[in-house]
Amino acid sequence: MDDALLERYAELIVGTGANVQADQIVAVEACLEAAPLVHAIARAAYARDARYVDVLYCDPQVKRIRAELARETTLSYVPPWLPQRLLGIADLEGARILLSPIIPPGTLDGIDPERAGIDRLPALKESMGVTNARATSWTISPYPSTAWARVVHPDLSDADAVAKLWEQLVYVCRLDDDDPAAAWSARADQLYQAGTSLDALGLDALHFEGPGTDLTIGLLPTSRFSREGARARTRAGVEHMPNLPTEEVFTTPDPERTEGVVRATKPLDVGGAVVDGLRIRFEGGRAVEIDADENAEILRGRAALDDGAARLGEVALVDRESRIGELGTTFFSTLLDENAASHIAIGSAYESAVGAEDAPRINQSIVHIDFMIGSDAVDVTGVTRACERVPVLRRGAWQI
Amino acid sequence: MDDALLERYAELIVGTGANVQADQIVAVEACLEAAPLVHAIARAAYARDARYVDVLYCDPQVKRIRAELARETTLSYVPPWLPQRLLGIADLEGARILLSPIIPPGTLDGIDPERAGIDRLPALKESMGVTNARATSWTISPYPSTAWARVVHPDLSDADAVAKLWEQLVYVCRLDDDDPAAAWSARADQLYQAGTSLDALGLDALHFEGPGTDLTIGLLPTSRFSREGARARTRAGVEHMPNLPTEEVFTTPDPERTEGVVRATKPLDVGGAVVDGLRIRFEGGRAVEIDADENAEILRGRAALDDGAARLGEVALVDRESRIGELGTTFFSTLLDENAASHIAIGSAYESAVGAEDAPRINQSIVHIDFMIGSDAVDVTGVTRACERVPVLRRGAWQI
Repeated sequence: MDDALLERYAELIVGTGANVQADQIVAVEACLEAAPLVHAIARAAYARDARYVDVLYCDPQVKRIRAELARETTLSYVPPWLPQRLLGIADLEGARILLSPIIPPGTLDGIDPERAGIDRLPALKESMGVTNARATSWTISPYPSTAWARVVHPDLSDADAVAKLWEQLVYVCRLDDDDPAAAWSARADQLYQAGTSLDALGLDALHFEGPGTDLTIGLLPTSRFSREGARARTRAGVEHMPNLPTEEVFTTPDPERTEGVVRATKPLDVGGAVVDGLRIRFEGGRAVEIDADENAEILRGRAALDDGAARLGEVALVDRESRIGELGTTFFSTLLDENAASHIAIGSAYESAVGAEDAPRINQSIVHIDFMIGSDAVDVTGVTRACERVPVLRRGAWQI
Repeated sequence: MDDALLERYAELIVGTGANVQADQIVAVEACLEAAPLVHAIARAAYARDARYVDVLYCDPQVKRIRAELARETTLSYVPPWLPQRLLGIADLEGARILLSPIIPPGTLDGIDPERAGIDRLPALKESMGVTNARATSWTISPYPSTAWARVVHPDLSDADAVAKLWEQLVYVCRLDDDDPAAAWSARADQLYQAGTSLDALGLDALHFEGPGTDLTIGLLPTSRFSREGARARTRAGVEHMPNLPTEEVFTTPDPERTEGVVRATKPLDVGGAVVDGLRIRFEGGRAVEIDADENAEILRGRAALDDGAARLGEVALVDRESRIGELGTTFFSTLLDENAASHIAIGSAYESAVGAEDAPRINQSIVHIDFMIGSDAVDVTGVTRACERVPVLRRGAWQI
């Protein structure tokens, strides 16, 4: 990728995504191959007078070697300095930039799924607490590593696969726009409008209907779609864009009122292992049956890690205006795939999407795993507190 | 480099160098390019039942970008989680493996030396305290990155320079031996014998004489050459080899009794900047004049960081049996160059090289910078407590 484009991308990530402020610490996490973009990010951050840019490079091979060789009783061990780093950045109200995927899909292919599911690093259980405290401005953006490109475009040579993935990322990140920052500001306005319209309906639940799916997700009285998302704000008042690209409106559901069955519409990657053909049945808010064509054990393991891990922490709606959905590519990356289709997440919930009175009721967990349940074949209908049914998405298009 | 050789090298580093124990945490620091050796190290460590292998990859370009662009007042900033990691590893009595150089020589070429000297990372001021507490088993070994190979073999193509440097490292690390671990055990015995013979002389000082050099270094009553070096031991009793390769015998001098002038016999790299033609005058143990043909300011800056930074913390003798010296190559890497020739270091001292009664008198500093002062043209003479002069090294050969 040429330097000018890397610089343009870095500027978007540092300026619009993390919105780095003067004297801020900037913490970057990336795979080794992303070094050229990391350098451009460091330059852009110091150009904005950042105090210090701290880069943590992750090496998926080291994770795989651990999964293969370490004693099973040690696989859940987390050295104390990893949460200390995250909590330290939060204490300092720093900016966090993550180039995704850190662990490419397929990294753990062939590893016994029971073992593969135990090591959750580089994910940390402290992460959602930091997010909910709104201590840091943060953003997640994609970087097309060779290992990832191979999974997305398996029929191409490595070089062609990376080139094709770069081309798609330029499109979905709107780097082809004359002014990418302005383009994202306009898209954020649209998403905010959609959220506001949804909130105006006074919904009590969302009903998803499609092949293999008949799922009702209850909302909390103060669940709002317009509070969070493309325009997040730290407690210090710094606006930032947590995902770049982002195409969703989402809220925090009632963790006790999800009922029915759902079939994932895309495969999902869980820490390097691809879960395909996922089917879940919910009762009283809990995922009581988890099945899949492949690697179901990994998701079952995660869902058993604590009480909230089997309940919902997020429901998000994505319309077909999404540039990601339009491409029709499965990226095996939550960052992109979740912005291609409506989705839900088991595990921890975003506190800022509800009012203070409902904050104690939102789901708590050390995990947060998104999976896609939307497609043109899945209808989404709102159910109001007056029990009226209101079409929300039909064939992927907003009805509101 | 082929996998078999990487595996052989990793086994030597993990087994003989760090001597990784069951259930130990293993902390590795390396440049991005060293990833293949890091993977082999991770495999070797887990094969020895290590609990967790933590890899911190350093990116010299990020350091350079900081030196170029960050506000000068921020250049000495160290985020709290970096010392927390080091102290955490020490608390857990882990093993530490460093693949050198982390920052290749020449990384900071062209940067204003005043600015270049301020950021000491990845070096940490807590480092010598951890070493002196003998909390961790540790080792430093070389990895031939392209950036380093270019500096050592500037007339060769990148690929040839790396291949040539690998070939040299195989030789100096004795990986060409049938049993590298046994070869190092034998060499460690030789070095221990040399140290024991030196100790038996009851020396009060060492006198270095050669072109531009007339330097007398006073020793402490309990300074010993046989206590440390190739066979170090943690407080828990784990034997390890702090440098691999190692060819030196060294001790801790009296920080108040160095007098005279000294000329470095090789250029030295100080955190990415090469200091060439170094000359220092000592008075009452203090470096009172520091000159060089290039980058003197960087060393002057380091020597001014605290009171002990201008006093000696180490004196080391290397004979011409050293495989490194034999090659006649300047590696611009302290790990190798210090094992090619006798050397001294300004800054912090090794407590374990003296008896408990002298421990309070050894030099203290946040820096420790070695530089080479030995060559075949430099005679080293011992001065006993009875004021007798005893030849120690003549034309590079032991006289003891």
